[in-house]
Amino acid sequence: MWIYEKKLQYPVKIKNPNPTLANVIISQLGGPDGEIGASMRYLHQRYSMPYDEVVGILTDVGSEELAHLEMVSAIVCQLTRNLREEDIKGTPFATYFVDHTTGVYPIAASGVPFDMKYVGVKGDIIADLNEDLAAEQKARVTYDNILRLCDDPDVREPIKFLREREIVHYQRFCDALRVTQDKLDSKNFYACNPSFDKGCGK
Amino acid sequence: MWIYEKKLQYPVKIKNPNPTLANVIISQLGGPDGEIGASMRYLHQRYSMPYDEVVGILTDVGSEELAHLEMVSAIVCQLTRNLREEDIKGTPFATYFVDHTTGVYPIAASGVPFDMKYVGVKGDIIADLNEDLAAEQKARVTYDNILRLCDDPDVREPIKFLREREIVHYQRFCDALRVTQDKLDSKNFYACNPSFDKGCGK
Amino acid sequence: MWIYEKKLQYPVKIKNPNPTLANVIISQLGGPDGEIGASMRYLHQRYSMPYDEVVGILTDVGSEELAHLEMVSAIVCQLTRNLREEDIKGTPFATYFVDHTTGVYPIAASGVPFDMKYVGVKGDIIADLNEDLAAEQKARVTYDNILRLCDDPDVREPIKFLREREIVHYQRFCDALRVTQDKLDSKNFYACNPSFDKGCGK
Amino acid sequence: MWIYEKKLQYPVKIKNPNPTLANVIISQLGGPDGEIGASMRYLHQRYSMPYDEVVGILTDVGSEELAHLEMVSAIVCQLTRNLREEDIKGTPFATYFVDHTTGVYPIAASGVPFDMKYVGVKGDIIADLNEDLAAEQKARVTYDNILRLCDDPDVREPIKFLREREIVHYQRFCDALRVTQDKLDSKNFYACNPSFDKGCGK
Amino acid sequence: MWIYEKKLQYPVKIKNPNPTLANVIISQLGGPDGEIGASMRYLHQRYSMPYDEVVGILTDVGSEELAHLEMVSAIVCQLTRNLREEDIKGTPFATYFVDHTTGVYPIAASGVPFDMKYVGVKGDIIADLNEDLAAEQKARVTYDNILRLCDDPDVREPIKFLREREIVHYQRFCDALRVTQDKLDSKNFYACNPSFDKGCGK
Amino acid sequence: MWIYEKKLQYPVKIKNPNPTLANVIISQLGGPDGEIGASMRYLHQRYSMPYDEVVGILTDVGSEELAHLEMVSAIVCQLTRNLREEDIKGTPFATYFVDHTTGVYPIAASGVPFDMKYVGVKGDIIADLNEDLAAEQKARVTYDNILRLCDDPDVREPIKFLREREIVHYQRFCDALRVTQDKLDSKNFYACNPSFDKGCGK
Repeated sequence: MWIYEKKLQYPVKIKNPNPTLANVIISQLGGPDGEIGASMRYLHQRYSMPYDEVVGILTDVGSEELAHLEMVSAIVCQLTRNLREEDIKGTPFATYFVDHTTGVYPIAASGVPFDMKYVGVKGDIIADLNEDLAAEQKARVTYDNILRLCDDPDVREPIKFLREREIVHYQRFCDALRVTQDKLDSKNFYACNPSFDKGCGK
Repeated sequence: MWIYEKKLQYPVKIKNPNPTLANVIISQLGGPDGEIGASMRYLHQRYSMPYDEVVGILTDVGSEELAHLEMVSAIVCQLTRNLREEDIKGTPFATYFVDHTTGVYPIAASGVPFDMKYVGVKGDIIADLNEDLAAEQKARVTYDNILRLCDDPDVREPIKFLREREIVHYQRFCDALRVTQDKLDSKNFYACNPSFDKGCGK
Repeated sequence: MWIYEKKLQYPVKIKNPNPTLANVIISQLGGPDGEIGASMRYLHQRYSMPYDEVVGILTDVGSEELAHLEMVSAIVCQLTRNLREEDIKGTPFATYFVDHTTGVYPIAASGVPFDMKYVGVKGDIIADLNEDLAAEQKARVTYDNILRLCDDPDVREPIKFLREREIVHYQRFCDALRVTQDKLDSKNFYACNPSFDKGCGK
Repeated sequence: MWIYEKKLQYPVKIKNPNPTLANVIISQLGGPDGEIGASMRYLHQRYSMPYDEVVGILTDVGSEELAHLEMVSAIVCQLTRNLREEDIKGTPFATYFVDHTTGVYPIAASGVPFDMKYVGVKGDIIADLNEDLAAEQKARVTYDNILRLCDDPDVREPIKFLREREIVHYQRFCDALRVTQDKLDSKNFYACNPSFDKGCGK
Repeated sequence: MWIYEKKLQYPVKIKNPNPTLANVIISQLGGPDGEIGASMRYLHQRYSMPYDEVVGILTDVGSEELAHLEMVSAIVCQLTRNLREEDIKGTPFATYFVDHTTGVYPIAASGVPFDMKYVGVKGDIIADLNEDLAAEQKARVTYDNILRLCDDPDVREPIKFLREREIVHYQRFCDALRVTQDKLDSKNFYACNPSFDKGCGK
Repeated sequence: MWIYEKKLQYPVKIKNPNPTLANVIISQLGGPDGEIGASMRYLHQRYSMPYDEVVGILTDVGSEELAHLEMVSAIVCQLTRNLREEDIKGTPFATYFVDHTTGVYPIAASGVPFDMKYVGVKGDIIADLNEDLAAEQKARVTYDNILRLCDDPDVREPIKFLREREIVHYQRFCDALRVTQDKLDSKNFYACNPSFDKGCGK
């Protein structure tokens, strides 16, 4: 279980609303490589992992991604605060506004609601760790692209923090994969599954 | 942010695997009225709520739903433990197994992956609280149906606990709605939105 | 069955095309809280309702929502009439136009086609009526938002009519819930289902 | 608008419940070629049709499809009536039951909720009429397949009625296409659109 | 199997980037009537076709659609080449860019990823050929609409080539349907399926 | 473009129909890690790759995956051949049969139609190659699971061939990643994108 602590992992204090930028950043909440997918991926992959250290990494990283989704939500919320109707009418934000007013609803930048199809849980340690490495790289690219599109330092600072964390996570999953391959038969490491193939890696 | 505490909100200790039952219960993880949808609904609706007590209720309940999704995952995981290939071959569980082995992947009982389309965030306190009341009732029905289909006391006890919590949440959202209506103009309580209509409820 | 009567429930006569506004209003046709979802929700929930007066309300309201989806379609159609290619090229309407020309296709404002995942049918009278109350509030908010984004009186008048009807429907579902709770055991009204739990409410 | 008449287009009186058969027939409600898609296709294609007789055919057929979806719902409802929990536990119907009890929810036989992606509205008379011809043939095949899987005469009779109607609709759309081609330049009939290409067919 | 030949079916050489136009044209890659759907439709329908000449047509046309999806991808790629960040920031292309940079990802113009729900495979020759006729008409309309929205001759030429091919395919499917009807009982041609109904067409 | 050669990459000759097994194997056609997703992933990622050898690998592997989807389709087709109605009635295959007869339609084992959401194209060489490594591992697990559920040697042989090819592809993508990292600044290899960050890797 998780205990809520009433503070963001990294502070978000945005002075100027910018709904056009919010429309882009929201992808890191509910988009294909966003934080909801990330937390759900790691917190669910835990159950079929055969090694405690890998379960531990997934729990840590998955819980941290919950903190990240709260940060991204806070960014989106602050970028759409205090808008007047004239700031919305006829802008691209209007298509979001009609269905969600200025609430925070988890979608991709394209407008497509979050879908668990973006997430893989194969119940196989090698496949799942490769999925996790890919996920962190894809999230890193999304943050890179947000930084390419955003000048406001109030937004850039928390985004840079989030981007750095994805790189740290990538390295942790690299370690997890190395540990796993050492435990399994190194020659055939992607050819067996310890839950089903009894002699696997022995 | 959330701090992980390594214990389930209510213990799950299932002795007998039952993949057919897991196929049904998984809906309360990734189904239309499951715990992922519940936590995401409340944790995101928070941002557009005008009253602190309502934000507090949504944060509390949303964080508790995270604990519930961990419980449902644990139930699904334990019901599919130690299966032999003969327990899977030719059974309805095989269509899940081919894509997820015995990992825990958030889908509805129908096999459809979780989709945020099940969740409403309207950025309007009256609409969102009505959504929450409905969500709790729908989750309650799902637990009722699981109980109708399940005889194993090891499974029934945590499910009964989860069902009770939905009723408590329903009552909390009833309170939140009452508080809100008292603060708004009681005659027109569903006709204005404090974020946009300045005189609303004054 | 339904007999078609060749007239709109409320007249729609729009003089000036406005594809940008059509892009927003279309959400009340095929969006998360639009009229297709509304009619399908009520017309299908009817089958598991234990009380005739509730079946009657659902049939009435569901049939009226069919009339509403015809009104919203007429609004969208009239707002995209007589466009020249220059009115479309390079505008946000172009992404709709490429796939549907100026036909009326049921999508959300985000561009996502209508999906029945927006609709709940639980086969439980208390849950389904709570769903209906939420649905009416969410539709009401969508109409509120359309009014916030729209100045054209030709469009505002039918939208205001539709918004008023949602409030009337909300009140009818409040009545239905009251009637239902009187018939069921008032203390435990959300804890049983008359189709399965024989003594329920007796 | 549509006036509800409290009778089915063709009577449905099923004596014996059969949830396994209901699981299959429900596809003709919410499946890829089901009656919801059919009614929504025709009732929305109307708006961009240049000829009154074609608008009339689409309105007629679309309204009749509403009557058909009511018939299919009635069949599904009657096939799942008076089930005891023992009739559901461990059967394939259990995955439906957990989320919808014995309510009628519009899905495909696969369990996937209805999605408007099954429906095409191109805003082009030739393309839309070809879509309609294909839709009627696909619905006809679904009814053929239901008849291949169903022995109960109480179910077969209304299904045969529905199948016959699809063939009548196919013929009406053939007529509509013929009328249209006569009006357009017969050599180039699929190469222009009267709404955009002014000299088209002149 | 397919052997790759390193050349486009028709040359694509676009001098001027135009991400707004790419946003529209991409629908003919991953949209409801795009080339991915087309190739997948024909290449999969082949398996249940009873006549060799129809299998041959489906294989030919399906393989050609693979070449078309390569052409549409090349158009999208070339229209988004050499963009500077200033060309993207604040434009409608930004919502695509954040998730895919300038990679080519198969979506509809609306932003919705390609979904096989757009494609019908009924396992019935009459229904499937009607589906194919409709598909070609719908693709033709999409190309018509692209031409209405596009002035750049470098883009128009390959699009006109693709449009012409759809008309040729339509004619081939007309021929296939004629051949099929001649082989089946002409009076009842849409009322039987040679795979199941043994006497069908004899 | 691709030239069709009328032979399978590896022969498929199945003597005994087995629709239950077809229901499982079809996931390697239209499921989350199936061959349609694989071919579409590689053939579209090509366009944003900066190095010719990587483009070459993606073209090769993507074209081979087209051959694989043809093999999986052939397996599914042959497993559902010559069924009598009695072989389908009341079996899990009936929910597939009602909508597709014995045609081959690309879905996951769960019944969910193929969705491009399973596929990532980030327009970034490091992220895309990590995605590809994960994709090959996930496909390998699916084939492992099929082998765990399948005794028929006629089916096992082509499945084993397909599984081996995924391992070869994994190794080719490992090589591609190594080549790429050598070309980029080895310390920061996942921190830049040669298309946007000019000094990247210099």
